[in-house]
Amino acid sequence: MRLAELSKRSGVSTATIKYYLRERLLPQGERITATQAEYGEEHLRRLRLVRALIQVGRMPVATAREVLEAAEDESLSQNSRMGTAIWALPHGAEPDQDDPQAARAREQVDTLLERMGWAYCQELGDTSPAYRTLTAAIASLARLGYPHDTEHLLLQARLAAELAVADLDLVEAYDTPAERIEAAVALTVLYEPVLLSLRRLAQTEESGRRFGE
Amino acid sequence: MRLAELSKRSGVSTATIKYYLRERLLPQGERITATQAEYGEEHLRRLRLVRALIQVGRMPVATAREVLEAAEDESLSQNSRMGTAIWALPHGAEPDQDDPQAARAREQVDTLLERMGWAYCQELGDTSPAYRTLTAAIASLARLGYPHDTEHLLLQARLAAELAVADLDLVEAYDTPAERIEAAVALTVLYEPVLLSLRRLAQTEESGRRFGE
Repeated sequence: MRLAELSKRSGVSTATIKYYLRERLLPQGERITATQAEYGEEHLRRLRLVRALIQVGRMPVATAREVLEAAEDESLSQNSRMGTAIWALPHGAEPDQDDPQAARAREQVDTLLERMGWAYCQELGDTSPAYRTLTAAIASLARLGYPHDTEHLLLQARLAAELAVADLDLVEAYDTPAERIEAAVALTVLYEPVLLSLRRLAQTEESGRRFGE
Repeated sequence: MRLAELSKRSGVSTATIKYYLRERLLPQGERITATQAEYGEEHLRRLRLVRALIQVGRMPVATAREVLEAAEDESLSQNSRMGTAIWALPHGAEPDQDDPQAARAREQVDTLLERMGWAYCQELGDTSPAYRTLTAAIASLARLGYPHDTEHLLLQARLAAELAVADLDLVEAYDTPAERIEAAVALTVLYEPVLLSLRRLAQTEESGRRFGE
């Protein structure tokens, strides 16, 4: 398809598509004349992912490019490409190395991974950004004197494991490794606000039941 | 206690405490001489909450003040104060009224609330920021052509309901309404990164099991 059709089918203006091409967020089309290029379904798919990252996830262009490069690195296995792309997504605060609570939080995270039997995560340890974000979050809870016992974290981890099975089922429904990696990245970004808003709605409901008139 | 002790017990510098006092994030102490004031346990507790909002939640001072004012409004019931304070927390994107997907997403959210039997949420409807964030998130999924079927959302809502019961158990363990409201706000902010990082860890694990070598 030509640029005009790519724009029409994706709902992204031609000016924005040209910007994404210049910024290398979208691979060049196949040049057919000096001024025209031909685009395929993979451009359409990539455009959806770029919009998910930039327009919905409000990601800086440089970060989005990093995520896309990781997703495309053909020297890696499917699982590594998926993992590398997701690791390149923005994460929360990093633990403060000087905080004595951070060392204790780290032990707690290790216990949690052990008890969940999350062997892949144990192997990755603190090279995983999510491991570090979790450590920082638990250290904050501890430093501010709020509850953070392992049983409560275990409950959350078990629910997260159920979610992950459903999330990966969505990903596996795509046919090719390229589509699966793109879907995994997009769904990670797009489902986080779904999860957080459902949690707040559920809290409103539970609070109404307990404390409402 | 005097300012120096409040600083020592809270781990917040006296300069920062003075800044919070000036910005009305912390109520004034009881003045005992022209230059000295006495602070109580409620100041210590409030200081923890302010740090959770500003230092961990990276909230602007004006937003934090709004959250705290809502938490303190004695004309409201305990449940309303808790709800109003949590509604004042930052939320995600708002739905775009001109987007035809937003109207469809709204219907889907209404179906979800109906099927979950979330009567309080149904009554609040789109006055609740979480309702609007959820609508916007589902509209994005639909617009970008990613899966967003009601069954998948229902699974997430059921897990969120389980989380909410555990969250409210933590809140109810505090004795007074003031402490409960403060804990509800702090725990909402502090547990969001815990939940998101656990989900990413669980996805890494599940992905490793399915696609790893």
